[in-house]
Amino acid sequence: MGKGDIRTVAKVSLETPPPQQKILHNRWHPDVPFCGKIANGEVVKIECLDWTGGQIKNSDSADDVKNVDLTQVHYLTGPFEIETAEPGDILLIEIQDVQPLPEQPWGFTGIFDRRNGGGFLDEIYPKAAKAIWDFEGIFCSSRHIPGVRFAGLIHPGILGCAPSPEVLAEWNKRESELITANTLDRVVALPPEPQSVHAGSAEGEIKDKVGREGARTIPGRPEHGGNCDIKNLSRGSKVYLPVHVPGAKFSVGDLHFSQGDGEISFCGAIEMAGVITIKFNVVKNGMAEMGLKSPIYQPGPVEPQFGPGRHIYFEGFSVDEHGKQHYMDATVAYRQTTLRCIEYLRRYGYDDYQIYLLLGCAPVQGHIGGIVDIPNACTTMGLPIDIFEFDISPGAPVKKMDMGSCAYATY
Amino acid sequence: MGKGDIRTVAKVSLETPPPQQKILHNRWHPDVPFCGKIANGEVVKIECLDWTGGQIKNSDSADDVKNVDLTQVHYLTGPFEIETAEPGDILLIEIQDVQPLPEQPWGFTGIFDRRNGGGFLDEIYPKAAKAIWDFEGIFCSSRHIPGVRFAGLIHPGILGCAPSPEVLAEWNKRESELITANTLDRVVALPPEPQSVHAGSAEGEIKDKVGREGARTIPGRPEHGGNCDIKNLSRGSKVYLPVHVPGAKFSVGDLHFSQGDGEISFCGAIEMAGVITIKFNVVKNGMAEMGLKSPIYQPGPVEPQFGPGRHIYFEGFSVDEHGKQHYMDATVAYRQTTLRCIEYLRRYGYDDYQIYLLLGCAPVQGHIGGIVDIPNACTTMGLPIDIFEFDISPGAPVKKMDMGSCAYATY
Amino acid sequence: MGKGDIRTVAKVSLETPPPQQKILHNRWHPDVPFCGKIANGEVVKIECLDWTGGQIKNSDSADDVKNVDLTQVHYLTGPFEIETAEPGDILLIEIQDVQPLPEQPWGFTGIFDRRNGGGFLDEIYPKAAKAIWDFEGIFCSSRHIPGVRFAGLIHPGILGCAPSPEVLAEWNKRESELITANTLDRVVALPPEPQSVHAGSAEGEIKDKVGREGARTIPGRPEHGGNCDIKNLSRGSKVYLPVHVPGAKFSVGDLHFSQGDGEISFCGAIEMAGVITIKFNVVKNGMAEMGLKSPIYQPGPVEPQFGPGRHIYFEGFSVDEHGKQHYMDATVAYRQTTLRCIEYLRRYGYDDYQIYLLLGCAPVQGHIGGIVDIPNACTTMGLPIDIFEFDISPGAPVKKMDMGSCAYATY
Amino acid sequence: MGKGDIRTVAKVSLETPPPQQKILHNRWHPDVPFCGKIANGEVVKIECLDWTGGQIKNSDSADDVKNVDLTQVHYLTGPFEIETAEPGDILLIEIQDVQPLPEQPWGFTGIFDRRNGGGFLDEIYPKAAKAIWDFEGIFCSSRHIPGVRFAGLIHPGILGCAPSPEVLAEWNKRESELITANTLDRVVALPPEPQSVHAGSAEGEIKDKVGREGARTIPGRPEHGGNCDIKNLSRGSKVYLPVHVPGAKFSVGDLHFSQGDGEISFCGAIEMAGVITIKFNVVKNGMAEMGLKSPIYQPGPVEPQFGPGRHIYFEGFSVDEHGKQHYMDATVAYRQTTLRCIEYLRRYGYDDYQIYLLLGCAPVQGHIGGIVDIPNACTTMGLPIDIFEFDISPGAPVKKMDMGSCAYATY
Repeated sequence: MGKGDIRTVAKVSLETPPPQQKILHNRWHPDVPFCGKIANGEVVKIECLDWTGGQIKNSDSADDVKNVDLTQVHYLTGPFEIETAEPGDILLIEIQDVQPLPEQPWGFTGIFDRRNGGGFLDEIYPKAAKAIWDFEGIFCSSRHIPGVRFAGLIHPGILGCAPSPEVLAEWNKRESELITANTLDRVVALPPEPQSVHAGSAEGEIKDKVGREGARTIPGRPEHGGNCDIKNLSRGSKVYLPVHVPGAKFSVGDLHFSQGDGEISFCGAIEMAGVITIKFNVVKNGMAEMGLKSPIYQPGPVEPQFGPGRHIYFEGFSVDEHGKQHYMDATVAYRQTTLRCIEYLRRYGYDDYQIYLLLGCAPVQGHIGGIVDIPNACTTMGLPIDIFEFDISPGAPVKKMDMGSCAYATY
Repeated sequence: MGKGDIRTVAKVSLETPPPQQKILHNRWHPDVPFCGKIANGEVVKIECLDWTGGQIKNSDSADDVKNVDLTQVHYLTGPFEIETAEPGDILLIEIQDVQPLPEQPWGFTGIFDRRNGGGFLDEIYPKAAKAIWDFEGIFCSSRHIPGVRFAGLIHPGILGCAPSPEVLAEWNKRESELITANTLDRVVALPPEPQSVHAGSAEGEIKDKVGREGARTIPGRPEHGGNCDIKNLSRGSKVYLPVHVPGAKFSVGDLHFSQGDGEISFCGAIEMAGVITIKFNVVKNGMAEMGLKSPIYQPGPVEPQFGPGRHIYFEGFSVDEHGKQHYMDATVAYRQTTLRCIEYLRRYGYDDYQIYLLLGCAPVQGHIGGIVDIPNACTTMGLPIDIFEFDISPGAPVKKMDMGSCAYATY
Repeated sequence: MGKGDIRTVAKVSLETPPPQQKILHNRWHPDVPFCGKIANGEVVKIECLDWTGGQIKNSDSADDVKNVDLTQVHYLTGPFEIETAEPGDILLIEIQDVQPLPEQPWGFTGIFDRRNGGGFLDEIYPKAAKAIWDFEGIFCSSRHIPGVRFAGLIHPGILGCAPSPEVLAEWNKRESELITANTLDRVVALPPEPQSVHAGSAEGEIKDKVGREGARTIPGRPEHGGNCDIKNLSRGSKVYLPVHVPGAKFSVGDLHFSQGDGEISFCGAIEMAGVITIKFNVVKNGMAEMGLKSPIYQPGPVEPQFGPGRHIYFEGFSVDEHGKQHYMDATVAYRQTTLRCIEYLRRYGYDDYQIYLLLGCAPVQGHIGGIVDIPNACTTMGLPIDIFEFDISPGAPVKKMDMGSCAYATY
Repeated sequence: MGKGDIRTVAKVSLETPPPQQKILHNRWHPDVPFCGKIANGEVVKIECLDWTGGQIKNSDSADDVKNVDLTQVHYLTGPFEIETAEPGDILLIEIQDVQPLPEQPWGFTGIFDRRNGGGFLDEIYPKAAKAIWDFEGIFCSSRHIPGVRFAGLIHPGILGCAPSPEVLAEWNKRESELITANTLDRVVALPPEPQSVHAGSAEGEIKDKVGREGARTIPGRPEHGGNCDIKNLSRGSKVYLPVHVPGAKFSVGDLHFSQGDGEISFCGAIEMAGVITIKFNVVKNGMAEMGLKSPIYQPGPVEPQFGPGRHIYFEGFSVDEHGKQHYMDATVAYRQTTLRCIEYLRRYGYDDYQIYLLLGCAPVQGHIGGIVDIPNACTTMGLPIDIFEFDISPGAPVKKMDMGSCAYATY
């Protein structure tokens, strides 16, 4: 037989509750037991649930989003033992394909309630909302955001190897310092959370330990990558991941049919259950030889191409919506950039929540423009014209249309 | 004759000191007098000095960079009266070409001394340094950074219309508040500066007023654009600029042969004297009709294309080089991203200042990755493999080479 | 449920002999009975066998290619009744996805024996040969052609609606005139062939008629498209097909994992069994309104992108390999172009048949260069550098390697 | 001074008649004297007249086209002695820039009279016609073809080194055999032509010999390239040219602001006078080492990019407009392809000659589709949607507009 016959090393169930599926886990910890073994050089398929483990339904209400249980997330598939991998190596993975599960040809984009998760613009848009996206081959469209349709830049939001005890301790230390020092009226980081912990096949003491110490999967972290939410990590990409424990303990999840740079509404990508095909190679002593402290990657050759001239670029600066000047703050600038885009698209009849949802998941290009001209950072967002079924070019006539509504929560 | 005969509305001199050239100015103020008139619909050529007005020489010492007089910058060409333009309109400009001045076929990239200008990485790299770039048609190369050569993504760093008195007052107010509140051990913004003020043809009271009130040209600002330093604002781009005063008072300058996203070393682009060809059109009442608070643009069709798979992407997170966790700070994340790239390229024999210079001016792609996964912002930088004359692919063998040196200042 | 649940309107079997599968047929004729019905606006999945119906095996001998039975080809799936379609309409199809059958993750490229099918270079390379390609997600590689690996530009070789009796008569007339007038020592066209005819569910008189009159599926034809073998008709493409009979009688087949412009070895694409997802829309009276005599198409946004500078372009002219000057013959020129490429790649250790196979299936760009400079047509072929695992750039050192062998037939 | 100061090795005059300019010549012959010397490794600028030497005027009549003197063409600049180049070497040239002459910012596209030059569609469109194009930076537009505007893919139509006496003899032999055997009612090739011969600085016997033996510059030829009219040989391209005589005797000319694949109207590109910047390198013994019988090239990185989905592709087959079936004739197929495009665009109000002119010079993509499916070759032409100022998408409404007229000749 050809080498094309690819082994599936983990299957998920859409019926069994995620806590009962031993190939899943929802914390980063070195003691989560291996759920399978993969040879150096092997290509395998790995199935993943959507990151919430099925909490969000294909419906026209966003109550499920409003009430989502975030102590459960993210359900990742793994960890896998990669043969021959040792600390200091690099795990080179090639993403050969990502597909939705055939039995669930749809995904969702959510805006979380400001008091339960929040998002990039939650001070302006505090309510929960949702859009369901139907997949048609490489394309998707949504009954909740009419007038747009685009090809997915399909990718995993989360990839990474488990931290060593030392790396994990460093994470917990620096994040707890941030939490302690916090003076903002909002949650700035999430400490370990025993509730809803899922440590794969581990029970008892090990599971308790994972609950007490395990790092939440929400943030990406420099030492291993994790939840980077990089939209271009799509089919054909090669990623170089630092290895911190024997066997690597590689996990993957949070598959996205599409995402915009920044994934602004937090649950901003088109979240889906799916299957990813990966080739694994171990680069011995790669961290030192490649000079790597964080992952790097090379994209594949098949990103959707619109042509440079088929984008509208919005500019934003580090002066916030109250007129306050911030010092070189690219985060503030990018928030302004997204607001400029919302103002532009609002003219066609969309409501702001629809656009906020759209900018989280459509393949918008978020660029650092200038980051040295004190006091203003400048960022840009490139919106592809051709994802719209009408002409949004700056020169074209504007007509307000009936754009319906996204799904809202009851309040 | 054909309409291709394009009028040059402002010529610069490389010999006459910039303060004596009445078509130049170096502050944003509504009272800087018009230096010429352009019809609605007209295509014109405008010559510009390099942003420092010739302070930086084609030499192998960076003392000129170390001692640069920043009270003089930027020398802009303008302001021009655009016929029929009124406040509330949009000035639509099409950048039809940008070229170096034929008599000066070279440019420079500088790292400023930390105490005189500084830059994105000045806490780590505080010294002044410089690279001279020679132009060969669309390509450039530098004796100070051997082994690289690339096509320019040529563009103006600064474009904009003059502020109204009200807009100017707002700028001065919010920036002075930032200065007043500053607790950092560094300059965070620049107040109006009478020294070296150049108000075009204005003398006496008007010039004094421009000196007292005129906004510095260093930062871009949301209301008009200005020094956005957007590398993709290149040939063929259309930019939509808000108009705040009768006649628009359009100015342009700070031409770049090439720049990387962020222009990280502050004088990070390949700075040059040159000529820009622009078509002007007035969109009546455009600000309201297009919903614009800040400029937007559409790139042209001729950006250098390397293919998505011919980039190495580095990832950075908002954990700084001292291990401190910052909350969702994309600026910190992008600084880490650039450091990861420096560590990677260092292996080939470059010294860190050479790479710092290179990342300011080569067409690197700086992206917002994830900006919602508390507490870590994630940014990426895509480094084009094909600007190097040797193979920097992650899989290729690495050999340390003799890479010479960039130009340094004496200390 | 979401609209993403897509109906499969035709399933093929890899076990049942193709002549017994009623959803297949192998001639173009208006009397082949409908095998299913599709609504205007519907998205469906259609399964297809490889074009030979399984005659070629995953083996290291090309005897199967040498002895292929060409009276059977191509096995197409269809014809389908598209509701509301009438002669004069345009059938607008959107190719939403193409995938190999999961149970057969490999494909083949063949060079036919000169006396049984032949190919573009059969006067120089008359023997049968074969390469098997294994699929790894979006990539493929072959044990018969080491050192290359590329992403598929997956597409159907054949798409079209059935001819009307009048159109069919016109085909048979003009092709028989060519056959009659032939003075070349080779087969120039294929008349209707009763042997091995498969008319779907038709038996008896209708099947006999289809055998007597039905047009062979080998050539594409202007009136309906058919076997165009256009490599860019890939995922996301929209194709506008003329309708000649009530219900359109749409058929599809000859799926390719990848192909180069020209498909030079006749069985030159990577042939595979697979499933295609298509959306159907009827454009009433489209032929007249759109001014169409032949199909047109718009590609999708996800073609593999290598960057213009990552190709080597070979030039060929209408002077043949015997030094004879032909008049403006682009076919002769393209043959020379391919020979130039073979000579170039031969230096790395490949034998000519391996390269001939490769140029049929890798995504090479075949362009008309100049077609007006008497007497020489000039064509070019762009070979992507990045499909090779070693550096084939003109400037890189050349080393002859052991490249093994493709599969050959016994003689 | 920097190495950016580039020497101009040949200047042309727009006033002096071309026959009096010794840096020009209009035949390929080894005895045309060198007009300058260029070092191995040097970058130089070379000025060129338009290929007719100024016969075509910026006017609204095409009488100049109708009566053009083709015995004079093409006026090439050169030949240059490239130091160290010997027969068997490869001359590697890098095209660093191409620009129109600043004093002549316009170009022309012509359709030649069928009896004086003709073109690809001259049996259908036998009359002389013309369009003048005005340059606006990287863009061009024409008063003779309203509604289109595009960025130039600027390039030289002709590049090459002189033939050796043996190569020249081979050219003359094979082309005269074609002329002798001709039974078509049209000119199929052009023998040496003493009238209007221009042999640079040569007079007397040498000039006579060049007139008697010199090869016409109209066709490209495999041994040296010459008039290939390859639209992508633009800025940044590297071309590898065989050397046949000591010193290479390199010539260049026939500059094009833009061209479509095939340059279908013969004088189909936007012809212009201009200046080209080239870097020269000699690859010793390159013909044998690189396995080259004909030139090859690598494009630069800055071609206009529209995105694959922003093209409409027309299909054509080797069945001619009289319904006659030709055997695998890509030339016939490409003619049909262009006719399909004309029929499509005609609906907007253009007359056929305007479209014929447009398809010669706009950046249309002409591809070999299938070249093995007997008896039909299939070619495609990709028309970029975004060169039109209105929406020509197949789905957009069509309105016939007043498109004026191109320039016609009097008859």
